[in-house]
Amino acid sequence: MPDSPTPPTAEPARSERTRVLRAGDRGRYDAATVHAILDAAPICHVGRVAADGQPIVIPMIHGRIDDTLYLHGAAGNATMRGIEDAPVSVTATIVDGLVLARSVFHHSMNYRSVVVLGRGRTVEDPDERMAALEAITERISPGRWEHCRLPNQKELRATRVTAIPLVEASAKIRTGPPHDDDADLDSDVWAGVVPWTTTAGRPEAAPDLRPGIEVPGHIDAMTPPA
Amino acid sequence: MPDSPTPPTAEPARSERTRVLRAGDRGRYDAATVHAILDAAPICHVGRVAADGQPIVIPMIHGRIDDTLYLHGAAGNATMRGIEDAPVSVTATIVDGLVLARSVFHHSMNYRSVVVLGRGRTVEDPDERMAALEAITERISPGRWEHCRLPNQKELRATRVTAIPLVEASAKIRTGPPHDDDADLDSDVWAGVVPWTTTAGRPEAAPDLRPGIEVPGHIDAMTPPA
Repeated sequence: MPDSPTPPTAEPARSERTRVLRAGDRGRYDAATVHAILDAAPICHVGRVAADGQPIVIPMIHGRIDDTLYLHGAAGNATMRGIEDAPVSVTATIVDGLVLARSVFHHSMNYRSVVVLGRGRTVEDPDERMAALEAITERISPGRWEHCRLPNQKELRATRVTAIPLVEASAKIRTGPPHDDDADLDSDVWAGVVPWTTTAGRPEAAPDLRPGIEVPGHIDAMTPPA
Repeated sequence: MPDSPTPPTAEPARSERTRVLRAGDRGRYDAATVHAILDAAPICHVGRVAADGQPIVIPMIHGRIDDTLYLHGAAGNATMRGIEDAPVSVTATIVDGLVLARSVFHHSMNYRSVVVLGRGRTVEDPDERMAALEAITERISPGRWEHCRLPNQKELRATRVTAIPLVEASAKIRTGPPHDDDADLDSDVWAGVVPWTTTAGRPEAAPDLRPGIEVPGHIDAMTPPA
């Protein structure tokens, strides 16, 4: 419990707001760690504040180019509009397994997570927009961008791309076995870790796929990002 | 793209705020659907608004009893304190696969997600607190509660339990193949779905596990909630 949901309690250290307060020894701030987790996480959860002060968290997919995180959505999407020049929190989490202790209290999860705080910047530059869409596509499905029909002008007009600088960001990682109280170590309870893995199944062709099109190598080789 | 991050754009339907605005045909509001997704999602992402107006999204684990969602954390945890009698958004998402279209634009994911809006209520009643902790534990690891040492008074004092009523909640689900533009259907591009599954690996005993303790049935039978 307290030990279980000890994910990144983001507040104040690259900036003072993104310091990991709880289980502080699990905090990491170096860019390589933050980038690796963002790149590995299938999706992220984007939090904004609505006009009435209500926080709203929506799942999205993301891409990254160097120190910039990119989101995309329909031009009129409420989240995409709501984070334009407004504060946003983007959190990406990969669960690596269950940590099963002798006591309920010391149960936990192994995980890698990143919390990014920032302000959304709607990307207007056509080259940056296209690069961002490529980064989002390629992160999820490497090789896909070159294989597919690229966005046309009408589709680009219907799409909003938002950049968030990776300046205020922190990572939190838990690995390893449970940490039980000494008094519980001679108990009969089984303790350990059950690892979790996300795997890709066999590709299922679209019902309207033209006959004779084989599964291409970039799909055949596909494994999920995490 | 616009089609890709079409997760629940939560705003205004059980209440007017939780209506699924984008891809509205993917919205579901019945309790059975909302409950099933919450029960199946390994973790949730909890959004709050910090004092400076910054939204902050943190991963947590959750439990459910009937129409109440429960979170728990250390008594002083910033998120747990920040959602006390304050607006909160809890979003749980399960990614079921990649939807690969002929055009980059029509790429998507198959997923199930729920967005809950509400206010946190710190649970004070001892019986409700214990029931909530049991629900959280049992949802992730059925059979674990009875197997383990239960929380003692000291651990309970260190733990905050927060309830969120499942009143304003909406689900969004995407299933099935990609939907390409007619003009793209005779292209040479492979289109279809790559399913994703999360699976549990073999249990790894803690290094300090007392010799002779076998993996119990409730762990042996374990599969991840999604």
